[in-house]
Amino acid sequence: MTVSPGRTLHELRERKPLVHQITNYVVMNETANATLALGALPVMAHAPEEVEEMVGLASALVLNIGTLSEHWIEAMLLAGRTATERGIPTVLDPVGAGATVYRTETAWRILDEVGVTVLRGNAGEVATLVGADAEVRGVESMAVGFEPAELAREAARQLGLVASVTGPVDHVSDGARTLAVANGDPLLASVTGTGCISSAVTGCFLAAKPEEPLEAAAEALAALGVAAEDAAAGAEGPGTFHARLYDALAALDPDALDGRARISEL
Amino acid sequence: MTVSPGRTLHELRERKPLVHQITNYVVMNETANATLALGALPVMAHAPEEVEEMVGLASALVLNIGTLSEHWIEAMLLAGRTATERGIPTVLDPVGAGATVYRTETAWRILDEVGVTVLRGNAGEVATLVGADAEVRGVESMAVGFEPAELAREAARQLGLVASVTGPVDHVSDGARTLAVANGDPLLASVTGTGCISSAVTGCFLAAKPEEPLEAAAEALAALGVAAEDAAAGAEGPGTFHARLYDALAALDPDALDGRARISEL
Amino acid sequence: MTVSPGRTLHELRERKPLVHQITNYVVMNETANATLALGALPVMAHAPEEVEEMVGLASALVLNIGTLSEHWIEAMLLAGRTATERGIPTVLDPVGAGATVYRTETAWRILDEVGVTVLRGNAGEVATLVGADAEVRGVESMAVGFEPAELAREAARQLGLVASVTGPVDHVSDGARTLAVANGDPLLASVTGTGCISSAVTGCFLAAKPEEPLEAAAEALAALGVAAEDAAAGAEGPGTFHARLYDALAALDPDALDGRARISEL
Repeated sequence: MTVSPGRTLHELRERKPLVHQITNYVVMNETANATLALGALPVMAHAPEEVEEMVGLASALVLNIGTLSEHWIEAMLLAGRTATERGIPTVLDPVGAGATVYRTETAWRILDEVGVTVLRGNAGEVATLVGADAEVRGVESMAVGFEPAELAREAARQLGLVASVTGPVDHVSDGARTLAVANGDPLLASVTGTGCISSAVTGCFLAAKPEEPLEAAAEALAALGVAAEDAAAGAEGPGTFHARLYDALAALDPDALDGRARISEL
Repeated sequence: MTVSPGRTLHELRERKPLVHQITNYVVMNETANATLALGALPVMAHAPEEVEEMVGLASALVLNIGTLSEHWIEAMLLAGRTATERGIPTVLDPVGAGATVYRTETAWRILDEVGVTVLRGNAGEVATLVGADAEVRGVESMAVGFEPAELAREAARQLGLVASVTGPVDHVSDGARTLAVANGDPLLASVTGTGCISSAVTGCFLAAKPEEPLEAAAEALAALGVAAEDAAAGAEGPGTFHARLYDALAALDPDALDGRARISEL
Repeated sequence: MTVSPGRTLHELRERKPLVHQITNYVVMNETANATLALGALPVMAHAPEEVEEMVGLASALVLNIGTLSEHWIEAMLLAGRTATERGIPTVLDPVGAGATVYRTETAWRILDEVGVTVLRGNAGEVATLVGADAEVRGVESMAVGFEPAELAREAARQLGLVASVTGPVDHVSDGARTLAVANGDPLLASVTGTGCISSAVTGCFLAAKPEEPLEAAAEALAALGVAAEDAAAGAEGPGTFHARLYDALAALDPDALDGRARISEL
């Protein structure tokens, strides 16, 4: 296994890759700040007039359907198709798939028209997209029939991508191999947009290590999880945890990260 | 009086109601985080393709016209009419009513087409909507002719809803009874979107206690006010107060809340 | 030189000017909070139905193309032309000019149709707009051919406005005179939107001192820079720095500000 979040983070900070994000209104500031704190450069752009040009400048693309509408979907498809043509790695965060038909069908449409590299979602969202039972309430996932490692493997196989299913323990699979990531802190669930942040961080790691998306996706979750552990120490609740999360992302030490990452192959 | 913010907060945390919010760009992250910190589940969705389905899953709807435009107004009306048909309690926050004709007329249009349960605004906004004199500057209210308790009562009677007028002391009325809420801290006025947060928290309390909207609306303001008191203790200004406000909302103790709430019937 | 950030800040807090901002989704909350912390009143409004009325109530207008699209550009032009007609000072923040053709052309279009008072951008953005070489990556500027003071002077002369070029040292010029501002902290570059905040703060200072835009623009950067210095002391990284920046803006002491501002005429 060539998993080394520390080495990838080091690479990322050297290169400072541009990560183009077409994401939701709720978390734009948060994902941009996480990207910047980590050491990459975020750019948000959604106009059809510029998304193809912008994504062409970027080292990764992150698509997030958290507050979707027609014009934004068109922008995501335009940018996504350009990324696919140019071999730019793309993350899809199918926020709320399963909650409404519109979200489920939009996620499927993007999966159909764009060469998504990594699908990063919670268990309910990913289960919905592979046609499995899921209880989804808004943007939260309550219960799914699948065991999470199996869900990641099944999604990877069905959809032909790397599936990154986050939860108390995260599971990342390319269909053949499956990695479990056991870093993190329960406070992550008390702040809105930390799932979206994990998708943005996945984009950053993919930008630094495009040739190994399975490893990059798992490393990203480990790095964010370690930062969350640091942020939780000393936080008094979700608000101070949230502010401290950016401090912790910026303070991540590449040399210490491999020793703290709890990534295991199943 | 059956006012018990502690009991309603306890109920809310048990049920974790989904609160659908169609709100402004400035505060989406903030109202989502306040909802989550309190113990409910926020969901933001504004596409006409999904708002009816989404609101059907929710226990309350919050409409906020802070950065309105045509498509968003259509979404608010669609979601609002569905909520009305299904008996889902709805909060309207008429941000900036009185500042421009467009805002005033949009607020009136929503009041006309949607069965709004609670109108939550500042004195200038609410005075504008009942045709009284008000000095409004942007989204701030400078002066109104009415005494605030009288304004709440008049708005409740004219508009046939619960009027929740926030200020140094808040006044909530259903036209027959009027409650005053004396919790809070001046730092609330130094952070943008705390009015919008109070509307979101009102939606959360309505979701937990839909049968008593007068009490739920007053309890919501007391809970937010107590959290603001806790956040202010130790804050060094508006920025750290803001972060600490989410800590304080999450840390609210239902058992201690009734003793700290300063709600009185006038 | 009549430069006195302390006196202008004092004036601003007395008058509490309304500052109308048509800005990007990423930083709306941040620029509103910075405006409020400083002592002015922010208002965000972008609907064509209301922008002319809203800007007519305001003492300054801030236009920011950070997440532009057609409807937003129309709103910026409508508001900008009204501001020009009524003599309301206007700031343009050409976020990402040089990164895509769409952004560069939109910035030029606004400069052509609106009487922009102050152009506030980073070196790459401003260099692009005067036709000079620049390396722009997304919304970051990597390198430009010009020495920054010369760039500010050249932009001011070519475009007929006050050019405010921010960087490690900021340079503000009206073409005849050029001021350097040496306040600030490197942590500003680790938080997204601090450039946009500097444009909003410029709008606030212009609102308080419209007759001297060169001085007002330099004073704004000094005030924000001093606040950043205070916020950095005690910050543990970008997240806590960000929260503390609003504390520091609110705590700025007008009587001490002139002594701390490092503004010099070149």
